[in-house]
Amino acid sequence: MVSFESDYIAGAHPEVLRRLMETNTEPLPGYGSDPYCESAKEKIRKAVGMPEAEVWFLTGGTQTNAVVISTMLADYEGVIAAKTGHVSTHEAGAIEYTGHEVLELPQADGKIVPETLEKYLKDYFADENHEHMTFPGMVYLSHPTEYGTLYSKAELTDISKTCREYGIPLFLDGARLGYALESRKTDLTLPEIAELCNVFYIGGTKVGALCGEAIVFTKGNMPKHFLTSVKKRGALLAKGRLLGVQFDALFTDELYFRIGRHAIEMAEKLKDIIRKHGLPFYNQSPTNQQFVILENRQMEKLGEDIAFSFWEKTDDTHTVVRFATGWSTTEEDLKALDEALGRSLA
Amino acid sequence: MVSFESDYIAGAHPEVLRRLMETNTEPLPGYGSDPYCESAKEKIRKAVGMPEAEVWFLTGGTQTNAVVISTMLADYEGVIAAKTGHVSTHEAGAIEYTGHEVLELPQADGKIVPETLEKYLKDYFADENHEHMTFPGMVYLSHPTEYGTLYSKAELTDISKTCREYGIPLFLDGARLGYALESRKTDLTLPEIAELCNVFYIGGTKVGALCGEAIVFTKGNMPKHFLTSVKKRGALLAKGRLLGVQFDALFTDELYFRIGRHAIEMAEKLKDIIRKHGLPFYNQSPTNQQFVILENRQMEKLGEDIAFSFWEKTDDTHTVVRFATGWSTTEEDLKALDEALGRSLA
Amino acid sequence: MVSFESDYIAGAHPEVLRRLMETNTEPLPGYGSDPYCESAKEKIRKAVGMPEAEVWFLTGGTQTNAVVISTMLADYEGVIAAKTGHVSTHEAGAIEYTGHEVLELPQADGKIVPETLEKYLKDYFADENHEHMTFPGMVYLSHPTEYGTLYSKAELTDISKTCREYGIPLFLDGARLGYALESRKTDLTLPEIAELCNVFYIGGTKVGALCGEAIVFTKGNMPKHFLTSVKKRGALLAKGRLLGVQFDALFTDELYFRIGRHAIEMAEKLKDIIRKHGLPFYNQSPTNQQFVILENRQMEKLGEDIAFSFWEKTDDTHTVVRFATGWSTTEEDLKALDEALGRSLA
Amino acid sequence: MVSFESDYIAGAHPEVLRRLMETNTEPLPGYGSDPYCESAKEKIRKAVGMPEAEVWFLTGGTQTNAVVISTMLADYEGVIAAKTGHVSTHEAGAIEYTGHEVLELPQADGKIVPETLEKYLKDYFADENHEHMTFPGMVYLSHPTEYGTLYSKAELTDISKTCREYGIPLFLDGARLGYALESRKTDLTLPEIAELCNVFYIGGTKVGALCGEAIVFTKGNMPKHFLTSVKKRGALLAKGRLLGVQFDALFTDELYFRIGRHAIEMAEKLKDIIRKHGLPFYNQSPTNQQFVILENRQMEKLGEDIAFSFWEKTDDTHTVVRFATGWSTTEEDLKALDEALGRSLA
Repeated sequence: MVSFESDYIAGAHPEVLRRLMETNTEPLPGYGSDPYCESAKEKIRKAVGMPEAEVWFLTGGTQTNAVVISTMLADYEGVIAAKTGHVSTHEAGAIEYTGHEVLELPQADGKIVPETLEKYLKDYFADENHEHMTFPGMVYLSHPTEYGTLYSKAELTDISKTCREYGIPLFLDGARLGYALESRKTDLTLPEIAELCNVFYIGGTKVGALCGEAIVFTKGNMPKHFLTSVKKRGALLAKGRLLGVQFDALFTDELYFRIGRHAIEMAEKLKDIIRKHGLPFYNQSPTNQQFVILENRQMEKLGEDIAFSFWEKTDDTHTVVRFATGWSTTEEDLKALDEALGRSLA
Repeated sequence: MVSFESDYIAGAHPEVLRRLMETNTEPLPGYGSDPYCESAKEKIRKAVGMPEAEVWFLTGGTQTNAVVISTMLADYEGVIAAKTGHVSTHEAGAIEYTGHEVLELPQADGKIVPETLEKYLKDYFADENHEHMTFPGMVYLSHPTEYGTLYSKAELTDISKTCREYGIPLFLDGARLGYALESRKTDLTLPEIAELCNVFYIGGTKVGALCGEAIVFTKGNMPKHFLTSVKKRGALLAKGRLLGVQFDALFTDELYFRIGRHAIEMAEKLKDIIRKHGLPFYNQSPTNQQFVILENRQMEKLGEDIAFSFWEKTDDTHTVVRFATGWSTTEEDLKALDEALGRSLA
Repeated sequence: MVSFESDYIAGAHPEVLRRLMETNTEPLPGYGSDPYCESAKEKIRKAVGMPEAEVWFLTGGTQTNAVVISTMLADYEGVIAAKTGHVSTHEAGAIEYTGHEVLELPQADGKIVPETLEKYLKDYFADENHEHMTFPGMVYLSHPTEYGTLYSKAELTDISKTCREYGIPLFLDGARLGYALESRKTDLTLPEIAELCNVFYIGGTKVGALCGEAIVFTKGNMPKHFLTSVKKRGALLAKGRLLGVQFDALFTDELYFRIGRHAIEMAEKLKDIIRKHGLPFYNQSPTNQQFVILENRQMEKLGEDIAFSFWEKTDDTHTVVRFATGWSTTEEDLKALDEALGRSLA
Repeated sequence: MVSFESDYIAGAHPEVLRRLMETNTEPLPGYGSDPYCESAKEKIRKAVGMPEAEVWFLTGGTQTNAVVISTMLADYEGVIAAKTGHVSTHEAGAIEYTGHEVLELPQADGKIVPETLEKYLKDYFADENHEHMTFPGMVYLSHPTEYGTLYSKAELTDISKTCREYGIPLFLDGARLGYALESRKTDLTLPEIAELCNVFYIGGTKVGALCGEAIVFTKGNMPKHFLTSVKKRGALLAKGRLLGVQFDALFTDELYFRIGRHAIEMAEKLKDIIRKHGLPFYNQSPTNQQFVILENRQMEKLGEDIAFSFWEKTDDTHTVVRFATGWSTTEEDLKALDEALGRSLA
């Protein structure tokens, strides 16, 4: 069955897998101290335009969010996130497991609105009893968001400015960063993101790797003895090479960006197909995730040929479903979707 | 440089890597719900001789220990371990991070002595104030131990019996289980281990995989909603296939056992070389890790040609070092070690 | 200065203090095993109409919420609370510190609306991906709420029914329970509350004690080895008598209810004074906390003679303030307030 | 029955209780911001000879240990303690509950030996793999120890020096500090202890208060936003006056020291009685706890008239029991013990 279920349905991009094969028998030291990790870090530093940035590799997104947030927050602090943010709802309480509260803000289009954030911080510190409440100690946002949407340069700049005013680090979850960077609607480059954020991660799992996320600390702010804190959270891989080799491949010959570009191209064509069939979009997503409203019987019929994700019900007879593209999406897949949609609407 | 530094210096065994390549483009659902995970679980159930066993895959050893221990202990309980146990000293406090105490017992040859355990439990429950102390809620042991040693069938049976008497589950850390099973000195089979333990894991990272450990719950005792608890700890891989495909390969055509056998054969030859050069062993290890006492200057000289691990200092002029074999160890490696030892002693 | 700042501005009710003095020199065993704890528990069991209820004393409200919630939730569960609930916002993240998420529901008048709860639970379990989210494992509500409001018998019955349907315990925070029970607008008795809840606590700190809250487990559901879990959280008092003697006094000759009645009577008179001065109430509170909107300059003037609590700003020129009554509030206090209000409005 | 069971068998010293009564009806702000807390802090600053010391009141000993240790350690650190230290064994895992490991050292007479500590730290940092182990981040010692013994000035100075060399704070648990300060065998004054430690606490619960411990941060090192961290741990009392008034009384007219002196005088007389009856001491304790070895049948007979604590069994026919004196111990109590011992030996 042709699948648009997610951007992690396939294994690694062939260029990534090839490098894993080519380096497989080299004896290498463990825990991230091998030369491929070093090389990958150097390439990432170049790509983000920060020769002094500190880079660290972890295995998955929820793990990365929990490690970054819990090692950067002070004891009395929590992290601000949109109510629809991944850390707020879809990580089974992974942040709370580290002993820290997620301070949820209302969202618009999956995003934190700069003014909402500013008002929240102003009101918090104006409250005479605020010491009885969790201190806001970090702002978390995802880019693209869980709804495929993107922050504009103006929005990210505003949020970054507010964070600096309050002395609060800004953390950007880039689990799907490759698709943001190559979106036709973005005005944010990777170096700009690095400049505006205190810490962010470049997602590998959903952008061509078997697993792996690259955290970038941009202001000399990697927590002290980070290896020990990572190990303490069960997040230190013995064969660190698995992450180093993959990110080294992703940042060789712009593979990471090429994967992003391909998925965006496929997503744009997918949008054309959806439009051609007259189906309504749930929202306007300029990235690789497309949310479409289907009538339930049509959804069932389509499901016979095409895999996609359930998102949420809009009413008793309609459902939002998600179609995602990735490195492995092909023109044939799109053709199959087009035909299946035709059949499902017949 | 030829390396005996650890059993995780190389990538995956070629048969494992081949399967990753062969399955790479198949679209598969995430989070461990793919058919390779299912197939691997089924093969493991057969290998352990328990059609009803529950199997779960995680990424690394410290993560597995923390997840198993923290989800199986009650709030008021801690885990008993040898003072030299991995959870006691070499996991940066990963168990304590989950809110649970490690109750350390004295060790002999890296092992918990059955009588020591029995006395500890008896004394604990005899103490009138024991409710002010952490309840012993699990026994953790590693097999092979951190010193390469093995529990005999009699020892494991005694410990298992004591655990049952006190209603405490027995957890066996099998990060290097393959080398225990194929040791020439063991009298314990995989089904016997499964029978005697409530939960154990079959290590992949150190036995031919890129990463991965297979937890086996033997008594219908997998914690409820385990996926959610795993996710909450940041330990759920999106591309669960990475673990499923690898373990499926490891348990196809007895690969896991063949890897163990090869490493043991290499270790026995390595021991012969050590003996030939008249060097003292730190202890008697029947598995793939060999601990040898070197004079410091000799150690430095050897280090120019051969990679090995620092273990501990015995006095100001001598050091215990570790040589480990694995799937990638070759006869050429051994020859290089032999020659380098000759030079270092000259 | 006359104070309506809170219901914990004074020490203990004289009858409570007298009992502490009378029993002061008796040698008693520690940790809650003294006869006064036993006697207090027995009197509470009678007052709640449950001979089999289990009772436990702790020191303060946030501590009690954290202990009850964290010992009753399963690993993968969180607690549902109103967005304005004490555990959601005013405990500095005490619940998250125990590793559990607070699942916030929108509120009406400080309360969870039964239909909102029902819909939340229905939607949660209908979501195909709910295992990636925190399970709802308990419902927390406060009675009176943080806004002085009360659940009606019909509302509490509906919520209790929904909880039973989903197998989720209902926990009622009764930090100010005495004022709910004696409110002129309540239709809920203490035995009815005990019947409808799985666990609740009878607040002492804010109802006449120096400190202390009495948890009541109503369904034989006190967590196993609770003493050990309490000690593990640093919440076990050595001189448990301090809590036992106080609650024994509070439940002798209906003192707890007399305190409630007195504070309610004072609150009703206070409301009359507020009305007489033509000041608007922020909400309708039938208990001992009254929320009044003051013009800022008036607020400042009033503050010269009377202590009250800042609550929140409504706009740039108005503020909500709280007046609270308690066991120590006198007619003279009310007269002073009346006069000061007159002056402040002049 | 006459009781030597512990130093927390009675309520508060009459002078403490009197002050609670005298101040009972004053309206005071909550959470430790009342003038009695301020006055008590000022008196403590004077008593410890440090005008700049920061003082904070908590309710009990285990709570205080958990709060101090968990707010002062970095994420990757644990606390060093003697194997017999209160935090190691008798707090039900309260330190581990905060996510931190207790690094246990062998003890002598209940104390950490300065040389043992120095060697431990030296070895730790010499280990090439120490980043995989919990960093030692604090030294905890109790004074008097759990065995009633005391550190000498020379010992505490040595330990303090080692701590400074390694940049590790020294924390002294003074749950029974009053008995150390007034011991006839001590050469350490309160200002000297303050000078040598980074943080310590002056125990109230076991030295004349109903509850309460006063933490003293001696080097401007109180953790930032400590109130919030205390609240987050459920350890913030609403009626902070309960602690403030008691410590104000304890540090008025040297009451704290007078209580210590009285208990020591009673303990010395108790020792004479034990000696007179020819009973062996388990160890040499110069403070208010005396450990005596009794033959089991004698122990049972004695237990008919006198309450004492079970400590541990030495063999099948002998048991170590503890007799403790406190503010409420009288000459009559001692006479009763003398007579009961006579009868039990008959």
